[in-house]
Amino acid sequence: MSAVSMVELWRGGLLESVHAGHAVVFGPAGILEAWGDPEAVIFPRSSCKMLQALPLMESGAADTAGLTDRQLALACASHQGAQIHTQAVSAWLTDLGLGEPDLRCGAHMPADRAANKLLTCSDTAPCQIHNNCSGKHAGFLTLTRHLHAGPDYVDLDHPVQKAVKTAFEEVTGETSPGHGIDGCSAPNFATTVTGLARAMAFFAAANPEGGIRDRAAAHLTRAMTAFPEMVAGEGRACTNLMRAMGGRVAVKTGAEAVFVAILPDQKLGIALKILDGATRASEAAITALLVKYGALDATHPMVGKYLTDPQKNWRGLTTGEMRLAPGFA
Amino acid sequence: MSAVSMVELWRGGLLESVHAGHAVVFGPAGILEAWGDPEAVIFPRSSCKMLQALPLMESGAADTAGLTDRQLALACASHQGAQIHTQAVSAWLTDLGLGEPDLRCGAHMPADRAANKLLTCSDTAPCQIHNNCSGKHAGFLTLTRHLHAGPDYVDLDHPVQKAVKTAFEEVTGETSPGHGIDGCSAPNFATTVTGLARAMAFFAAANPEGGIRDRAAAHLTRAMTAFPEMVAGEGRACTNLMRAMGGRVAVKTGAEAVFVAILPDQKLGIALKILDGATRASEAAITALLVKYGALDATHPMVGKYLTDPQKNWRGLTTGEMRLAPGFA
Repeated sequence: MSAVSMVELWRGGLLESVHAGHAVVFGPAGILEAWGDPEAVIFPRSSCKMLQALPLMESGAADTAGLTDRQLALACASHQGAQIHTQAVSAWLTDLGLGEPDLRCGAHMPADRAANKLLTCSDTAPCQIHNNCSGKHAGFLTLTRHLHAGPDYVDLDHPVQKAVKTAFEEVTGETSPGHGIDGCSAPNFATTVTGLARAMAFFAAANPEGGIRDRAAAHLTRAMTAFPEMVAGEGRACTNLMRAMGGRVAVKTGAEAVFVAILPDQKLGIALKILDGATRASEAAITALLVKYGALDATHPMVGKYLTDPQKNWRGLTTGEMRLAPGFA
Repeated sequence: MSAVSMVELWRGGLLESVHAGHAVVFGPAGILEAWGDPEAVIFPRSSCKMLQALPLMESGAADTAGLTDRQLALACASHQGAQIHTQAVSAWLTDLGLGEPDLRCGAHMPADRAANKLLTCSDTAPCQIHNNCSGKHAGFLTLTRHLHAGPDYVDLDHPVQKAVKTAFEEVTGETSPGHGIDGCSAPNFATTVTGLARAMAFFAAANPEGGIRDRAAAHLTRAMTAFPEMVAGEGRACTNLMRAMGGRVAVKTGAEAVFVAILPDQKLGIALKILDGATRASEAAITALLVKYGALDATHPMVGKYLTDPQKNWRGLTTGEMRLAPGFA
């Protein structure tokens, strides 16, 4: 694969580690800029949750259920299982007359420090509501009820996933070359980096007073940027970066180092994949592109946090720095 | 850098992520096999702790202090701060008439689950003894006392680090092109992948009844293989792999995905570096090379754990697999 170097780690004046990847910036006229192979096929993983939420909006299920923007942000989230997230998902399931056993995402320990400590120190096992995808799954269940469909909403031939696939292929502008089973057990459809960036550009240019799909996309972007803490959580990159951009831009990470951005002011969509799956590199790369395209102030502390601050060790000594590879961003 | 693909992650029949790197297998006659760039300069990080322990042995400091093989294994360790590790380091410091404040490694939370839980749930901060390098630093302090040198034993011009650099360059067979400050604040000397593999081959061929350096190297290898639980800890790759090989082979990991192996039976040394710093890939790559060179049974459960077992998600569903890249191992 013709991925190009994007992010470097230096120590003692020597190059220690390198992360390569693919990135595409997509605008109204098509590809504006690209690095690596724009046609590389990737799994968007959680970076495409706003695409997976389109049928929830377009079907009328969200309106019928009276979902708030805070809930819609959660439907697009990879949350860290903090109390604000788990309480919201629990209430959502209750409103649907459902419960935790109706989820199909599986359980894992929450990344949120306080929630994790609470479970750890009380020897309590996490439940499916703690899963970072439980908001997306609550959205799937909302659509499932609206469609009077069966309980196994993560099956590839379930009406919910069929609707997701159709929306995904229409917005990426590509026939998906295949799918995988995601960490949360839902199908995850593959696309090219260009397809994912094209989808983000559609969200960026979506007209809030336009057709059904435009209104759905604009609404989801608005929900994500209005409730950044629901999309990830305190201390997390998506939340930090959206706050740093004052609600003007939506960003979303995905497992294995995918990162996307929706820039409505510039009508731009960005998608990138670090080939080795390293989050430290996808966070640095999206930060660099957000700065380059004028969405993020180069002097903002979050640019330091994810890219320019010196690397320090356990005694606080500077050990090296992160650098953008020559030719990237 | 001309790193080559070594480890691939597949999902739904599609390639999702790739790890590239450099590897060298060094034997009595020189390089036996290599992938990527054998001359690539790397930081060995913690993979070279047995080299950093050579002056401790050769100076007579270890004998004078009456260090046991269990302590020598700890001097070469990146331990996970379990009780067996912290108790041993505490006792060692006490034997030296020193204490935790004399360490210069800094403090971090232990990786050991029980130790981590104990500190977390009692709101207790970790100390420098919990640092994964505290055994190496106890060794540095033992040599410092033997040399009647000053307390700042991690300074580049301290007698301990001067002795480490001399031994490091002699055993790697190269003049180090530079150094960095490691996570534990000690200098970490750079070398080529070939230099690191050459050093491991020296350890593999070292004669237990030979000269001072041969005896020191053979003794350190014997200590590591005799006490694998002291070199890392329960559940960790170094400990698991050394146990799987029945004490016949010493292996050691280093930060940013370096892994080395000492194979006395075959008189081979192995060194590898995954360019992106991913541990999952360095563990898979060293496992593959240990199998290829007859040190590890391909049917051993640890080969499954680090390489061949299916990748599963939170519900236990198979989502994909790890594969060796074409042409590697």
